[in-house]
Amino acid sequence: MIAVVKNSATTEQKEHLISWIKGQGIEVHISEGHDYTVLGLIGDTSRIDMDLIASLEIVESVKRVAEPFKQCGRKFHPDDTVIEIGNVKIGGGNFAMIAGPCSVESHDQILEVATSVAASGATLLRGGAFKPRTSPYDFQGLKADGIELLLEAKKVTGMPIVTEIMNANHLPLFEDVDVIQVGARNMQNFELLKELGKTGKTILLKRGLANTLKELLMSAEYIMAGGNSNIILCERGIRTFETFTRNTLDLSAVPLLHELTHLPVVIDPSHATGQAKLVEPMAVAAAACGADGIMIEVHNDPLHALCDGAQSLTPAQFGEVARKVMKIREAING
Amino acid sequence: MIAVVKNSATTEQKEHLISWIKGQGIEVHISEGHDYTVLGLIGDTSRIDMDLIASLEIVESVKRVAEPFKQCGRKFHPDDTVIEIGNVKIGGGNFAMIAGPCSVESHDQILEVATSVAASGATLLRGGAFKPRTSPYDFQGLKADGIELLLEAKKVTGMPIVTEIMNANHLPLFEDVDVIQVGARNMQNFELLKELGKTGKTILLKRGLANTLKELLMSAEYIMAGGNSNIILCERGIRTFETFTRNTLDLSAVPLLHELTHLPVVIDPSHATGQAKLVEPMAVAAAACGADGIMIEVHNDPLHALCDGAQSLTPAQFGEVARKVMKIREAING
Amino acid sequence: MIAVVKNSATTEQKEHLISWIKGQGIEVHISEGHDYTVLGLIGDTSRIDMDLIASLEIVESVKRVAEPFKQCGRKFHPDDTVIEIGNVKIGGGNFAMIAGPCSVESHDQILEVATSVAASGATLLRGGAFKPRTSPYDFQGLKADGIELLLEAKKVTGMPIVTEIMNANHLPLFEDVDVIQVGARNMQNFELLKELGKTGKTILLKRGLANTLKELLMSAEYIMAGGNSNIILCERGIRTFETFTRNTLDLSAVPLLHELTHLPVVIDPSHATGQAKLVEPMAVAAAACGADGIMIEVHNDPLHALCDGAQSLTPAQFGEVARKVMKIREAING
Amino acid sequence: MIAVVKNSATTEQKEHLISWIKGQGIEVHISEGHDYTVLGLIGDTSRIDMDLIASLEIVESVKRVAEPFKQCGRKFHPDDTVIEIGNVKIGGGNFAMIAGPCSVESHDQILEVATSVAASGATLLRGGAFKPRTSPYDFQGLKADGIELLLEAKKVTGMPIVTEIMNANHLPLFEDVDVIQVGARNMQNFELLKELGKTGKTILLKRGLANTLKELLMSAEYIMAGGNSNIILCERGIRTFETFTRNTLDLSAVPLLHELTHLPVVIDPSHATGQAKLVEPMAVAAAACGADGIMIEVHNDPLHALCDGAQSLTPAQFGEVARKVMKIREAING
Repeated sequence: MIAVVKNSATTEQKEHLISWIKGQGIEVHISEGHDYTVLGLIGDTSRIDMDLIASLEIVESVKRVAEPFKQCGRKFHPDDTVIEIGNVKIGGGNFAMIAGPCSVESHDQILEVATSVAASGATLLRGGAFKPRTSPYDFQGLKADGIELLLEAKKVTGMPIVTEIMNANHLPLFEDVDVIQVGARNMQNFELLKELGKTGKTILLKRGLANTLKELLMSAEYIMAGGNSNIILCERGIRTFETFTRNTLDLSAVPLLHELTHLPVVIDPSHATGQAKLVEPMAVAAAACGADGIMIEVHNDPLHALCDGAQSLTPAQFGEVARKVMKIREAING
Repeated sequence: MIAVVKNSATTEQKEHLISWIKGQGIEVHISEGHDYTVLGLIGDTSRIDMDLIASLEIVESVKRVAEPFKQCGRKFHPDDTVIEIGNVKIGGGNFAMIAGPCSVESHDQILEVATSVAASGATLLRGGAFKPRTSPYDFQGLKADGIELLLEAKKVTGMPIVTEIMNANHLPLFEDVDVIQVGARNMQNFELLKELGKTGKTILLKRGLANTLKELLMSAEYIMAGGNSNIILCERGIRTFETFTRNTLDLSAVPLLHELTHLPVVIDPSHATGQAKLVEPMAVAAAACGADGIMIEVHNDPLHALCDGAQSLTPAQFGEVARKVMKIREAING
Repeated sequence: MIAVVKNSATTEQKEHLISWIKGQGIEVHISEGHDYTVLGLIGDTSRIDMDLIASLEIVESVKRVAEPFKQCGRKFHPDDTVIEIGNVKIGGGNFAMIAGPCSVESHDQILEVATSVAASGATLLRGGAFKPRTSPYDFQGLKADGIELLLEAKKVTGMPIVTEIMNANHLPLFEDVDVIQVGARNMQNFELLKELGKTGKTILLKRGLANTLKELLMSAEYIMAGGNSNIILCERGIRTFETFTRNTLDLSAVPLLHELTHLPVVIDPSHATGQAKLVEPMAVAAAACGADGIMIEVHNDPLHALCDGAQSLTPAQFGEVARKVMKIREAING
Repeated sequence: MIAVVKNSATTEQKEHLISWIKGQGIEVHISEGHDYTVLGLIGDTSRIDMDLIASLEIVESVKRVAEPFKQCGRKFHPDDTVIEIGNVKIGGGNFAMIAGPCSVESHDQILEVATSVAASGATLLRGGAFKPRTSPYDFQGLKADGIELLLEAKKVTGMPIVTEIMNANHLPLFEDVDVIQVGARNMQNFELLKELGKTGKTILLKRGLANTLKELLMSAEYIMAGGNSNIILCERGIRTFETFTRNTLDLSAVPLLHELTHLPVVIDPSHATGQAKLVEPMAVAAAACGADGIMIEVHNDPLHALCDGAQSLTPAQFGEVARKVMKIREAING
């Protein structure tokens, strides 16, 4: 960590600051400049409150030089993490096709969607049982029953299942769930992350709407600090001023996260764009820039079927996306 | 709700959509235009999934005309809600001065700060016991011990206390806490909101970093839907492209929220700006535009005392802010 | 256009508004609802000031149903526009590879870069002669001399040239320039756009840092309204809260703009990300989602050559990007 | 400037970089750390391209320590600049009340508005003659005739006038204009800024929708570098994700700009919020936090008069705002 101290500070103030830092067990390397004195802080600076030092009147600025990631950083684990879920692998060159309905609605619905996406190349089945809704008056999901229906679909198709958790107290219900999703709104629900860190479950951690990539990694670090390193990161769009799409998909997150961390990175083009017609172009773009998987909403309900629209694709449309994604992957890997 | 249907839609498609809507118990008023057919949806449209209809290919756009707030809306409760906490009132012309340290650190610290802010005009004592931190390696607060120390300070000063909750399972620890704060990162932790709705506690609900005012109100609605209408809203800055301040304080939230809701609105200039020198100007601006209170970080620790900086104010600086805020309030009310 | 009028409005107010609208030559279709009266405005509503009506107390909201694009809209020109510049075509399935240095620095530099990018597959040469710089004390480009050097490089390599204009008074200097670039900061310099509309030059119009896609199209409309429809749109990243990349590249702009307009769309991954290592993944992603071209910074200066870094690529790196982009295009078109 | 060089860099690479920097006339102070070597760059680093160095693979990060402002910085001119326009002063404790219609529409309109705002305490008259409009089909203002009408209103009321320029070629038309406004969209139209720097006119420079405060100051620096230091800065809202208000007014800009620069700072609550009902609360908040003036839209047209709404205030509403602003100023100064 580097702290730039103004030369308008008195010698006493500077010495006070330096001795405070040393009191935290940190070595201080001092360079006197014309206008500024630069302090190099050497040691385990991850415990130093950077904002506190930055806020001092005598301090011009503070910069953390080393990344604060201890476990998710590429530096400490140079090889790609490969997540294994039954026969399915994600990361390190293994690509995941996660597909399924936004919400689990009924036995027939989930079985029909599951069967058709499996036939089109999906490797994991997604479906919402507990649904985070902006309004308390909106449908909140089938909850425990939804998980049961997903497990039935798993029995029939053999596909591992992915579903969202909103409350650590629900963990017993997720015992047979293969991948537990943490939604964007809970990315910094640190209490939930800590509890998930105590499980051995694979966690699919979605980036928050207004969270930086560093914050996403710090949230992964919360899970890993608890002992669970089975984490898949997911970019699903960030909130910007543009209102044409629901969110703005930040595909540069894929190569950047691959540089910073060994964890696999998947893209959710359905939630990122909120428009079915944008799912295919964004899915193939994700595959082209090296994503480890895509996560796509597929439906079979009559209102959508009629109108051929919505954020969700029909099973046939999903099949077409899957085919094109595979072609792109062959082109870049071939 | 108004849905604009393209005239490129077939008659069958239009009829299918209209009959689906009617099946939800909604009346439909149809206006045929040259390029578009406008459907007016009349009835309890709060249960209709606006995004679903908007996503249909045949639909140009959908607009919710009525606000989806049932309990926090000004329409249903024209008078200002006045929150009473012991002898302290907030809202309806009653102004709250909430002050205290970022984190409770020790018995001496909290008592010293509490006594000094009480003397300067603070009406409630704030202090963090459970701290949401981006990094798992950062100090997470004194937890239950922190609450105990706050309660001791309450005993000495008589000030009601405000402290943050991060996990509904901790609620038993908050039994004697007067105001339970929900932090920005948990604004859409709907499971936590539901549990708080079951208590009779006053909840101070902070706006999320990237949440709209409507989303803030929908989160208040979650608490109210559970039966608890003792809610104070808090604007604490939103995330924007500007990096000079930690966040951008959105003071227009004060008059806008006052129009939309009957709940009181307080401003936290300390977290919004992240800079001590901006706390006073933003606090007086908040008072000028009608806020029902301010929430300010005050410290007494030696590193800060030396340097006279930081996001936190000294007790003396807080006293000066309190004095100016009172002058402003006299000017606008006088 | 649809205006939703509150039923709290008096009959006189409603009639006053309706007669004002009719006075603008617009037909009004009235639907009385329970809480609201919906006015359908039929006719050439592009001249109606939507904000003015929206701002009236008696008006709940206003929505423009028809897009305000008269010339750049896909509706009025269903086929893709194909821009022809000498032998080079852009749009309608023709892909442009635009490459060159950020700034033209010297005769040797531009010739060396031009020759090497031409050999690697570039079809147009870019280079900055007039440079928009945030600071007046930064290098402002070689200006007229820079254009001369670009023209020499064109003579040697045969590649048409692309360079930025900042002042309509400089147009005489651009007489032999093939493609005139309007930078992000000038996207809404309407006076400049009007002057470019009077020329027959191909204009490469970059999206502003905080401009929506609709605003980008309205700026294209300014050029077309003047009689010039030779326009290439360029997405180059938008400003968001994320600080890891210089800007956030919005690739969903490619399919969205293709739906809205017949004009070709190119992507500038160099400026969008500000990091050389991100140029290749974003360039291939752009090709995968259907962009009509990419625009990439290539350098040959010794400081960069040493360090193999920077927003600019070396000619060899550009060659590798070009090769991969072509493979992706074959995969999606094959 | 401080550059942090990774210790993975070879000695040759480090020496190459250091000799390149020295070649720019900059002294380099070297501190070897465990993981990093910190280079302190001493001398006139304003000419060094920070992005170029930051982009090198061997460089971890670069930080500018000194502000790049040479003329607008508070450091070089500790006293507040007081702008004098006829008898009107702005800055250094002098508060400006700028009021008038969005667009100049007719002789009667501008005279009526001018007379009424003068009576209510306005000290400068604003009115748009050249109007920047997103669409080429929207009303573009009365242009030269609009300026003539403003000058007539000046003759009658004695108030100096403020009006926007969009094209440096129009400068001859602005000869008798007292304050030339540069709109948000032209804040980085550097060619226009340079031309305005050659005049002796007072320039009211508005912050761009997505521009940082540092960029605003660099644009002021463009004008000052040309020799004109008669500049008033104006905050008028920034573009964020919140859609309830047209923009988000960033009032923290007032104290921050006052710290960074000696130039006066005014607030435009009308454009920032886009809603008449928010103008008063934001105007008084601006006065409370130390703004040097406010700029408010006032109208007298019949459509607005009927409905008592819009971004613009009636003259009576403006009078009320002016009265409250004065009370606030007395409270903070008294």
